[in-house]
Amino acid sequence: MTKTAPPPIVRRGLLLVLSSPSGAGKTTLARRLLADDAAITPSISFTTRKMRPGEVDGRDYHFIDKVAFIAARDRGDLLEWAEVFGNFYGTPATPVMAAIGEGRDVLFDIDWQGARQLSERALADLVRIFILPPSAEALYQRLTSRNQDPPEVVAKRMAAASGEISHWGEYDYVLVNSDLDACYRQLTAILTAERLRRARQPGLEVFVKALLAGL
Amino acid sequence: MTKTAPPPIVRRGLLLVLSSPSGAGKTTLARRLLADDAAITPSISFTTRKMRPGEVDGRDYHFIDKVAFIAARDRGDLLEWAEVFGNFYGTPATPVMAAIGEGRDVLFDIDWQGARQLSERALADLVRIFILPPSAEALYQRLTSRNQDPPEVVAKRMAAASGEISHWGEYDYVLVNSDLDACYRQLTAILTAERLRRARQPGLEVFVKALLAGL
Repeated sequence: MTKTAPPPIVRRGLLLVLSSPSGAGKTTLARRLLADDAAITPSISFTTRKMRPGEVDGRDYHFIDKVAFIAARDRGDLLEWAEVFGNFYGTPATPVMAAIGEGRDVLFDIDWQGARQLSERALADLVRIFILPPSAEALYQRLTSRNQDPPEVVAKRMAAASGEISHWGEYDYVLVNSDLDACYRQLTAILTAERLRRARQPGLEVFVKALLAGL
Repeated sequence: MTKTAPPPIVRRGLLLVLSSPSGAGKTTLARRLLADDAAITPSISFTTRKMRPGEVDGRDYHFIDKVAFIAARDRGDLLEWAEVFGNFYGTPATPVMAAIGEGRDVLFDIDWQGARQLSERALADLVRIFILPPSAEALYQRLTSRNQDPPEVVAKRMAAASGEISHWGEYDYVLVNSDLDACYRQLTAILTAERLRRARQPGLEVFVKALLAGL
């Protein structure tokens, strides 16, 4: 038996996708996770829309022009992209793939269309979670109690919720957010578990070799 | 929007397989899990060996004779089986499949050969966890500190450990048991996560239908 301790186990990061209709608690869960867990960072998208007051380039988005965006997209440099109200949004592949190669996880707050594009590019690295509201009433309550959106925006979000929810079947995990703390515990359990997948621990090869050599 | 609460979500149980070399802490982890979590029960095997003092038929094993065992095996009624020192051991399929159909999980404390047979029969329902000791020394310490096995048995177990460990690559998750509490938390996180897999919540179909009807 050897007296040297085995080396620490190198892991591959993962891409955690959170999708839900607006008002199901996704943003709150994502913020809490990012605050609690230093091993996961948000994906920072390219966007062609104008910077808003309080936003920081490179923190909230990478603000780029349309020509640069389209060039990146056409080179295949984007893991997913979308056009919303005439503006482009997209995820640059390079920083994301670098992060997971270094054992850091990346969080994506995207809709089913983004999740589907990510699935085409990086399925093995993906952990896709869909968050459902406990009921239609609860969703309505959450959208109105924000007191920040005019009624027509709330109505539009309720209508959009159906479309988003209809894609729950394309996700690996489905959580029902009846209680925020319980839902958060489920989210962190999934992250803990997925990090322990054999396929995400390439360092096990070296670890087991050292272990067997000592037997 | 409907005023009725959506029905509770029906789930399908899973088959949790724990394998490890003797001395890596598997039995301790399994006992703790069974004591803590009412939703998981141990798989109770058929065996043809004689009942030992203190054992209870139907609790520790189902004690049956060789003729009955071989008949069950040849009918395909066993999910996995093995012959050890002239005695047969095997897992009857019926109670296991009934349990998972009712949303209860079943725990298997089996070796890589049993895990492989289970994989052939019930892969989609399987969650396979391999537990590694932190080092060869730690394994030796644990096998000798039990103070119950003669040195030749310890030596045999150390030799057998290599063979068992060499199959770590056939498992979904690999845990290194450096600290029992930490390892137990990882085990329960995996169980929590795997229960939340979309594919294990057939009741989501009904739940989402009710949710969408209310929007």
